[in-house]
Amino acid sequence: MRLKNYNDPIYGFISIPTPFIYTLIQKPVFQRLRRIQQMGLSHYVFSGATHHRFAHALGAMHLMHKALTVLEDKGIAISPEEKEAAMISILLHDIGHGPFSHALEGILIENVSHETLSLALMKALNQKHNGKLSMAIDMFTNTYKRPFFNQLISSQLDMDRLDYLKRDSFYSGVTEGNISTDRIIAMLMVHDDQLVVEEKGIYSIEKFLLARRLMYWSVYLHKTSYVAEEVLKRIILRARELLNQGTAIDASADLLYFISASHSSVNQIDMDHYTAIDDVDILSMVKAGVKHSDPVYASLCNMVLTRRLPKIKVNNEPFSSDFIEKKKNRAKTKFDISLENISYYVFDGVMKNMAYNLEQSPILLIDKKGNTKELLAGSDQSNLKMLTKAVMKYYCCYPK
Amino acid sequence: MRLKNYNDPIYGFISIPTPFIYTLIQKPVFQRLRRIQQMGLSHYVFSGATHHRFAHALGAMHLMHKALTVLEDKGIAISPEEKEAAMISILLHDIGHGPFSHALEGILIENVSHETLSLALMKALNQKHNGKLSMAIDMFTNTYKRPFFNQLISSQLDMDRLDYLKRDSFYSGVTEGNISTDRIIAMLMVHDDQLVVEEKGIYSIEKFLLARRLMYWSVYLHKTSYVAEEVLKRIILRARELLNQGTAIDASADLLYFISASHSSVNQIDMDHYTAIDDVDILSMVKAGVKHSDPVYASLCNMVLTRRLPKIKVNNEPFSSDFIEKKKNRAKTKFDISLENISYYVFDGVMKNMAYNLEQSPILLIDKKGNTKELLAGSDQSNLKMLTKAVMKYYCCYPK
Amino acid sequence: MRLKNYNDPIYGFISIPTPFIYTLIQKPVFQRLRRIQQMGLSHYVFSGATHHRFAHALGAMHLMHKALTVLEDKGIAISPEEKEAAMISILLHDIGHGPFSHALEGILIENVSHETLSLALMKALNQKHNGKLSMAIDMFTNTYKRPFFNQLISSQLDMDRLDYLKRDSFYSGVTEGNISTDRIIAMLMVHDDQLVVEEKGIYSIEKFLLARRLMYWSVYLHKTSYVAEEVLKRIILRARELLNQGTAIDASADLLYFISASHSSVNQIDMDHYTAIDDVDILSMVKAGVKHSDPVYASLCNMVLTRRLPKIKVNNEPFSSDFIEKKKNRAKTKFDISLENISYYVFDGVMKNMAYNLEQSPILLIDKKGNTKELLAGSDQSNLKMLTKAVMKYYCCYPK
Amino acid sequence: MRLKNYNDPIYGFISIPTPFIYTLIQKPVFQRLRRIQQMGLSHYVFSGATHHRFAHALGAMHLMHKALTVLEDKGIAISPEEKEAAMISILLHDIGHGPFSHALEGILIENVSHETLSLALMKALNQKHNGKLSMAIDMFTNTYKRPFFNQLISSQLDMDRLDYLKRDSFYSGVTEGNISTDRIIAMLMVHDDQLVVEEKGIYSIEKFLLARRLMYWSVYLHKTSYVAEEVLKRIILRARELLNQGTAIDASADLLYFISASHSSVNQIDMDHYTAIDDVDILSMVKAGVKHSDPVYASLCNMVLTRRLPKIKVNNEPFSSDFIEKKKNRAKTKFDISLENISYYVFDGVMKNMAYNLEQSPILLIDKKGNTKELLAGSDQSNLKMLTKAVMKYYCCYPK
Repeated sequence: MRLKNYNDPIYGFISIPTPFIYTLIQKPVFQRLRRIQQMGLSHYVFSGATHHRFAHALGAMHLMHKALTVLEDKGIAISPEEKEAAMISILLHDIGHGPFSHALEGILIENVSHETLSLALMKALNQKHNGKLSMAIDMFTNTYKRPFFNQLISSQLDMDRLDYLKRDSFYSGVTEGNISTDRIIAMLMVHDDQLVVEEKGIYSIEKFLLARRLMYWSVYLHKTSYVAEEVLKRIILRARELLNQGTAIDASADLLYFISASHSSVNQIDMDHYTAIDDVDILSMVKAGVKHSDPVYASLCNMVLTRRLPKIKVNNEPFSSDFIEKKKNRAKTKFDISLENISYYVFDGVMKNMAYNLEQSPILLIDKKGNTKELLAGSDQSNLKMLTKAVMKYYCCYPK
Repeated sequence: MRLKNYNDPIYGFISIPTPFIYTLIQKPVFQRLRRIQQMGLSHYVFSGATHHRFAHALGAMHLMHKALTVLEDKGIAISPEEKEAAMISILLHDIGHGPFSHALEGILIENVSHETLSLALMKALNQKHNGKLSMAIDMFTNTYKRPFFNQLISSQLDMDRLDYLKRDSFYSGVTEGNISTDRIIAMLMVHDDQLVVEEKGIYSIEKFLLARRLMYWSVYLHKTSYVAEEVLKRIILRARELLNQGTAIDASADLLYFISASHSSVNQIDMDHYTAIDDVDILSMVKAGVKHSDPVYASLCNMVLTRRLPKIKVNNEPFSSDFIEKKKNRAKTKFDISLENISYYVFDGVMKNMAYNLEQSPILLIDKKGNTKELLAGSDQSNLKMLTKAVMKYYCCYPK
Repeated sequence: MRLKNYNDPIYGFISIPTPFIYTLIQKPVFQRLRRIQQMGLSHYVFSGATHHRFAHALGAMHLMHKALTVLEDKGIAISPEEKEAAMISILLHDIGHGPFSHALEGILIENVSHETLSLALMKALNQKHNGKLSMAIDMFTNTYKRPFFNQLISSQLDMDRLDYLKRDSFYSGVTEGNISTDRIIAMLMVHDDQLVVEEKGIYSIEKFLLARRLMYWSVYLHKTSYVAEEVLKRIILRARELLNQGTAIDASADLLYFISASHSSVNQIDMDHYTAIDDVDILSMVKAGVKHSDPVYASLCNMVLTRRLPKIKVNNEPFSSDFIEKKKNRAKTKFDISLENISYYVFDGVMKNMAYNLEQSPILLIDKKGNTKELLAGSDQSNLKMLTKAVMKYYCCYPK
Repeated sequence: MRLKNYNDPIYGFISIPTPFIYTLIQKPVFQRLRRIQQMGLSHYVFSGATHHRFAHALGAMHLMHKALTVLEDKGIAISPEEKEAAMISILLHDIGHGPFSHALEGILIENVSHETLSLALMKALNQKHNGKLSMAIDMFTNTYKRPFFNQLISSQLDMDRLDYLKRDSFYSGVTEGNISTDRIIAMLMVHDDQLVVEEKGIYSIEKFLLARRLMYWSVYLHKTSYVAEEVLKRIILRARELLNQGTAIDASADLLYFISASHSSVNQIDMDHYTAIDDVDILSMVKAGVKHSDPVYASLCNMVLTRRLPKIKVNNEPFSSDFIEKKKNRAKTKFDISLENISYYVFDGVMKNMAYNLEQSPILLIDKKGNTKELLAGSDQSNLKMLTKAVMKYYCCYPK
């Protein structure tokens, strides 16, 4: 059999190991990921970071293939069915992402995570293909008997995180996030069907967690792209408000389905509408919006389109109500904004990040004798401990 | 003065050297380049190649800055005004690009090149800024007294080509195109106000030309993205046909301006419409198009949207009319396509590439004694000569 | 003037800005750095890390050039004389390094640092060149009136550290150490003739310090290369012991000068002998040593030559005397080592590293209003504080 | 089983797949490759190119592993024994290299290639290990029944070339030589037990051959390192002459064994002496040589040690005897060199390179129907043809 290959600037070549996986990649619902930015509006700060979910999904699958090969070389028995299922599961883990990935998650559809939507789409594919995705779905939902597959798909050390850190570092040019995926994967092991890390790999894990933390503060939570995405959210909210008041919004029918009504459960949603929308629908709406008669909506659209963003100030402590009040008053007088609309222009909130979350399933180390212990127990220094602290930053946005 | 910096995955950091240049970058007409793919639909083959014109324009400016610094270090006098003008000129050299860059050039507006449109937009900016771009425009149009500035902006060895080869190689993952821009720039010199290359740099130039040739055949003219762009063109043409027949097309007003009527001179065009359109308008039209009542238009849109592209065959000789006729007949019977529409589905043509064009201004070498000669005269071997031959390939597309 | 260029895999091209600097590079005492490994025996673990001091010295000079250009662009006046002096100073900052760099520092010559030897060699060059290096020497010794030059040469954020971190990361393949030198340098500023960092650059500094810490534990203090260098030291010490007993050692005359007698001040040393030795003299001695009649000396030489190294165990607490005694007894019985020689085979010690040392001159941040504060005062989180703690690890080596 | 891993800056991590291969790597005869420069004196021009044969051997083995995995994925049956044998064979293919690799090949031992010496060393290891290397040796000598293994080890498209091009490009900083080994390997196939390339891989092969050609002219045959190696050869020849005259040379006994007598067959050689010498012996001799009483020998040694090299001029035609005579006369009068020694200082010769040799086994393409054809037959353009021409350049060296 001739293997199908995909070009990738990070791994060189990504081979598609089975015909069925190739079939899945060809599906319109998967090709749609070519129209969803991996990093929302981060390219407003990191001009190079224009990559799509499509390449990330293939990349995560590629790392899964590497990880399974390493585990097999170490003597772990993995059947061909399990192999294909694990690769399908990671390939489709993000298929439920909507326009601009995380930026609009929870806004277009309230209280529904992209994982829930991924699962719904996997189930639909499974039905069409007579159960060929059942094992992949079990692995995704952690109901498969060998938990390490789920841990490779969705844990604090999964192939998803490994790929996105490496990929986002490559595209943003923030070289310090460039983790050694090969080295980390080489340290993986399976013990009692649980994913573990060889003890000597502790520095690799430490580097991975530090890189993750750095990427969060330098890139993912960069204040300029953060404020851009906050404005983008308010565009959706304002549009919903206007629609509810009976004012028309120029947008695709599929997108209007999500803006007009508020859905908060996956069962309420017509998935055909969902798989029809992507970044294009949002950007198209924003472009049309700059000429809208509602000055609030038009001005928000204009901010995002021309990248003339509000000022964002970041602090370690919450902003005083005095400070916010002052900014609101200034906005009212200087830009003639009415009281009821002021929250579209002056708003505050909190950013939060934790590199390693002790409340989630821990990363386990295994020593040469086969004993396992939690990562922190194995770390001899206080370095890793600081990574478990949630870092909170407070921000306030207001007109320049 | 604190310098403004832009992140770039290739050069790390790009500094903006003067406040006026920063003002230009902030303009909506320049920010619009964030919504124009550098490489059209190449990301359908090279999934990583999702970068925009915006980063390329900054990158070319960065190389211009480097080149001018090298020339100054070699004793060439360059005034601060010239420096700023050269950087503005290269920064704006591509500002006239429309949706999907080269893919739709000559289709949306007939017989008008993107350079002509860049010039028109530069002139408009010049008017708004009271002539501050005059010297930049003179350099762009090669009417400035010192020709080497124009040669750095637009020649067979300009900063535009240097940046796009390096950038497209980086994003596509085709490492062989990764030219050493630093080494090439270090070999540049000015003699009698003409751009020349130090003789010892001949291997660097050879590598650059070979890399260019390789990028053409491996990437820019890759048959799969080529056919995708050919279909994209036919979507525009079909839409125009339908509009002329009175059938409505769902697209933005600004885009319809270009599709409905056929413009073939920059003076006929309302530039406000032009600067309002970008990839979003096209993709939005394509997305809506899949449900259009015209089966031809809908099927073409569907091909591009879902990446279910026609077959493309490439030959060294033109395809026989027999071959084409056979493909047409098969298309007619198998897919029930009427004779008048067959050319939307079965078509042939020729791709052409020349790494170094002897009919354009040559690359000049200068020896230690200050004598100049044309590149080929300096090359001791036949290697470079082959790069001057136009390579032609014939293609034929038809339904799978 | 045509500039002289050096190829460099990290920066592409390094330009030599003045003829006098080129003259210095051509000196045998500088060319000698081609025969001194940058990272001692680290290539025993990181096979790619074979680079020499020569390329590092050029690289640090290159970064100095970049830093001075950035500062000038920000309006800091720097005279051409200062520029050349700063570049000479950093170029020669490591010229006093001896064989295997840090690995044998303090062993071949007791209590004399490589900086002291660098200064002595600079002074000798200054004499030969009639004081042309005087300003460079003043900068090196921090007696020049503008301290920021010395801070660029030798501080906790100097061009030396920037280059070696980036270079050692590149050659070792430990990608996480790959700092963005461009981004860090872009954040530098001068205030009251002191080197400061723009406040917004705090994350870049944090990344730099974390990368430094990671490189220490992953690479510089890797236990396998650490034990190799410990054995190398003992080869010198054993050779000195044998020579003192009247036993001959096969080594070059220049090297024997340092092994036979114990020098502990730079004034006692004939610098001609010092500049004559490099890695070749040591390796040559080790190669001859494997056939020496003294079994201790021969066995130590054999360990290094064939990379059959003792076991090294690393702990967070000091090893108990019980543990060490047990290892000694085992060595005595199993390998028939006499009591007086046991310390060549079983030995313990401590490794120490501090990413940012509060007792040295601090890194200063400057805010937009021109106020400066110490790095830690500017950091809003506990992350940087952990980098100020000295991390100590205890090791014990013994035969396998 | 826990796999043994080696760090590598190019591939990240290299896994050692079997315990026996790890045993071979641990052998002193293999560890010796850590003391042999991969690229002779190329680091005199490309300061970064300091890598050793050791890392190259591991890298070539790594690519072999990748190639065999790709072939297995395509359905080619390869037994575990064949896999290990192929990896051993490529791992040891260069074990016979002597000091400075190609630079002194044919000089230390006349008319004996490094391949012959590699084979002799493999046979010795085979004897020690009771025939465990027999299959590897058969593959190396192309007597194994399935020729594709030999073609992966030693042909115009072998894993040796793939690794050294990529590695030498990485270390020299000549980015254009950075071939996509993954892409090339993905195109490999086996047909009738012969190595073939899938037809669609023709551009990858073209890029590989062009990269090879460029590396030859830019790096491997760079005139400055070329002349350095020519002088190095003359140091050996002069030493041999002096020894034959009864003058002592300060060098290791093992090296003197090869300098004193002239060997021209592998059977005449005591291999213990051969495996005892490496770059250290040569450099040690050169260092001692600068003080030798013979002015010719001393001056040649000084040239190499201090990198004060003769002038080298390169032409497309042979130098006229007039030109050479003039240079000789000038050398005689200006530097007082006697007639009998003049050829140590003034000499000429020819450099030759062919990217693809038609007289050797060709690279075969295979189309989708399973038909094979020679590479050139498959190339539609003249591009590849030029790569089959031998390029000759004439050089002449003389004192500056």
